[in-house]
Amino acid sequence: MPDRAIALLCAVPLLFAAPANSAVQPADLIVTHAYVVTMNASKAIYEDGAVVIKDGHIVAVGPAAIAAAYSSPKTIDASGDIVMPGMIDTHTHASMTVFRGLGDDVPDRLQRFIFPLEHKVVDREIVYWGALYGMAEMIQGGVTTIADMYYFEDEVARCAQKIGMRGILGETVLNAPAPDSKEPYGGFEYARKFIQDFRRDPLVTPAFAPHAPYTVDAEHLRIVQKEADALDVPILMHVAEMPSEVEDIRKNFNKTPIEYLDSLGLLSRRLVAAHCIFASDSDIALLKARDVGVAHNMVSNIKSAKGVAPAWRMFNQGVRVGLGTDGPMSGNTLDIIGQLGYVAKVQKLANHDRNAMPAIDVVEMATMGGARALHMEDRIGSLEAGKLADVIVLDRSSTTMTPFYDVYSTLVYAASAHDVRTAIIQGRVIMEDRDIKTVSVPEVREHVRGLSRKILAAVGQ
Amino acid sequence: MPDRAIALLCAVPLLFAAPANSAVQPADLIVTHAYVVTMNASKAIYEDGAVVIKDGHIVAVGPAAIAAAYSSPKTIDASGDIVMPGMIDTHTHASMTVFRGLGDDVPDRLQRFIFPLEHKVVDREIVYWGALYGMAEMIQGGVTTIADMYYFEDEVARCAQKIGMRGILGETVLNAPAPDSKEPYGGFEYARKFIQDFRRDPLVTPAFAPHAPYTVDAEHLRIVQKEADALDVPILMHVAEMPSEVEDIRKNFNKTPIEYLDSLGLLSRRLVAAHCIFASDSDIALLKARDVGVAHNMVSNIKSAKGVAPAWRMFNQGVRVGLGTDGPMSGNTLDIIGQLGYVAKVQKLANHDRNAMPAIDVVEMATMGGARALHMEDRIGSLEAGKLADVIVLDRSSTTMTPFYDVYSTLVYAASAHDVRTAIIQGRVIMEDRDIKTVSVPEVREHVRGLSRKILAAVGQ
Repeated sequence: MPDRAIALLCAVPLLFAAPANSAVQPADLIVTHAYVVTMNASKAIYEDGAVVIKDGHIVAVGPAAIAAAYSSPKTIDASGDIVMPGMIDTHTHASMTVFRGLGDDVPDRLQRFIFPLEHKVVDREIVYWGALYGMAEMIQGGVTTIADMYYFEDEVARCAQKIGMRGILGETVLNAPAPDSKEPYGGFEYARKFIQDFRRDPLVTPAFAPHAPYTVDAEHLRIVQKEADALDVPILMHVAEMPSEVEDIRKNFNKTPIEYLDSLGLLSRRLVAAHCIFASDSDIALLKARDVGVAHNMVSNIKSAKGVAPAWRMFNQGVRVGLGTDGPMSGNTLDIIGQLGYVAKVQKLANHDRNAMPAIDVVEMATMGGARALHMEDRIGSLEAGKLADVIVLDRSSTTMTPFYDVYSTLVYAASAHDVRTAIIQGRVIMEDRDIKTVSVPEVREHVRGLSRKILAAVGQ
Repeated sequence: MPDRAIALLCAVPLLFAAPANSAVQPADLIVTHAYVVTMNASKAIYEDGAVVIKDGHIVAVGPAAIAAAYSSPKTIDASGDIVMPGMIDTHTHASMTVFRGLGDDVPDRLQRFIFPLEHKVVDREIVYWGALYGMAEMIQGGVTTIADMYYFEDEVARCAQKIGMRGILGETVLNAPAPDSKEPYGGFEYARKFIQDFRRDPLVTPAFAPHAPYTVDAEHLRIVQKEADALDVPILMHVAEMPSEVEDIRKNFNKTPIEYLDSLGLLSRRLVAAHCIFASDSDIALLKARDVGVAHNMVSNIKSAKGVAPAWRMFNQGVRVGLGTDGPMSGNTLDIIGQLGYVAKVQKLANHDRNAMPAIDVVEMATMGGARALHMEDRIGSLEAGKLADVIVLDRSSTTMTPFYDVYSTLVYAASAHDVRTAIIQGRVIMEDRDIKTVSVPEVREHVRGLSRKILAAVGQ
């Protein structure tokens, strides 16, 4: 609301470092005359604002007048469009884009359909083109950072490098033969090499991805933790997602999945726990105490009728909660904007409270919340001087953006992934006016179409 | 799936009337080389199909080859895009577009916020420009028919005429002063004149819109029914939407809202009952027995945390159920495509069954279901020879449309309102390649922006 913005203008001098003297400072990129939504601690908004970028970082954020202190080879005039931090997808399987729309509305999909299908067809080619197409969709939808778990994760990393996207990318470890390893737990060997190969990449953070508490046994979970500690890398895992998982762990260990993981030492700052649908109040306290990140995948969770994770309660208790799309065979689309309305509305429904999960908190979850869930809140998630320059521009002339009474309400209840015009990752303009500059989307689409014909033939057999 | 389309090709000769002789027949418009989703009784699909239009009606639907039998001044080559029946929005308040995003996440909105706001600011100008902008958004999103309830409904009717949209438009009747009538129940007089003025319009069907069982007393509900019978017009009403409505009617009459309306003779083929969130199994049987149409407004209902209407159960019991957006102050957006995913996923969640509400049935609800809910299934809702030509084209090169394994899954779980390229209503091309031809959307937007500034000033007072 205008009042908010005006009230916050007094905070401006604290938010950007003025140049040391009156001389013009060099910058790489300026985005100006934007409706800037910072998502900083005070939720500052500049109705006519600017973001100045240098060496991949934000050097200044404030009213448009600040741009005068900088010279830049490129300036984007946003003409009143919304400029905000890039969205963060805290849980996905981008390569599965090749399977989007296959086997929807089918029971017991994971064991009866997805695992056998993956075993049959997933190879380097599918992983690469699926991830590249998925990342193109994500960037078109304003996602600038992802946490991804799959097989051949080095191929996913190559896609991130190619398209210019930031990601924590986890190689899957599980107790069965997998597309990229013949032996049970063969993912360990794969993961170790993958982590060595990519650990110094400026965009990619390699990680271990033990599939779930029901597909990785206690012994191997302990090994994951030990090796992740030694290599100082994150751990991505599905947690408290399946009714059968809850039941079996209760039967075998008399614990909740979250208590069980804690007993093995897995709950830590390293962990991004996807789903946590079945999290009790004491589980939530544990997640908070251990500083675990949680990926809330609303669309995927309700499409499979599993339930609604207590994300609103977690958020209010200070748990690190971000939003995730899950893979496109579960949630079908890979943009976070499409999740915002679901999170706001289904949390209201589940909490029997129309004031639960207000729009401003949903946008927080999609940006700073995601950064916290990935333990990267010092680097991404808001527009603040010193942070990495992950910035998106949304078209305010889009039909559903008028009227424009409250930007958070507009983003959550009315905006669409198609409204994203421009995406900047680490200071580099990856998409401008919906044109992705680093890959040819039509070419990638043709590859995916070709693969989908092969997949359909394989499914038919 | 391709198999389905191939299997159904044998039904082709029954689906279009061949020209009487081999001479070429005149037509007004041909849409060809389309992926045609007919939504007829056998769910026929033509992967390379055509739709032939003359005098506002569909004269032939079938494989692209049928187009050779017709000559037409205009042919649209859909290049493989999806061609399907226009979507039907069975419950909306299009004029409220001017209020979109105002007062979201606020308790007791209807009585404490919306009614006072409407009383203060709603006039002919707001109703006209709000409805015109709302209709532009609807057409951009593939909606070709609406059921609308508001004040100054003649202005809404003028918008429908101006933009070229089909609608059942109901003038509101309620027990309090309203923006267009100083006296309680003054809407009656307004409605009578409105119905006389528009009853012969080719696109507009005027109707009575008694607001709800809790805002129109028994005596006046009986008068509505009597007059609607005499004038042979539909009745649009909010039914079984509010917890307080259920409680009060239970207390005063020991009935459910639906039983109460039945006791007054209000349940009939004339009625389109919006919401029906609180419908018991016996209520559902009543709705079915009385041939009532039901508008299921999933997004609006869950955003207000009211609950999930048993729409899947109703659909399975053969109740006439269509989908609705509700007004943009409740649901924020006015396209039906944006509702599809919510209906599919939240019905699965509410029914604890991932196989509930499969995609094909959701698309049915949005098209033929909507036609049935409005008791217009003989004229709209599917692509069949003899029906009115309400046809939309969706872009298959849109990123989320690849891969394309199942068209219903793609439409429900992956498509977006932005994918609609072309909209034809009663044979007239209203939008082509996203360009609305009957109004200037930027001009209408400027009017709405101006009004939103006035509204904000009024709210501030």
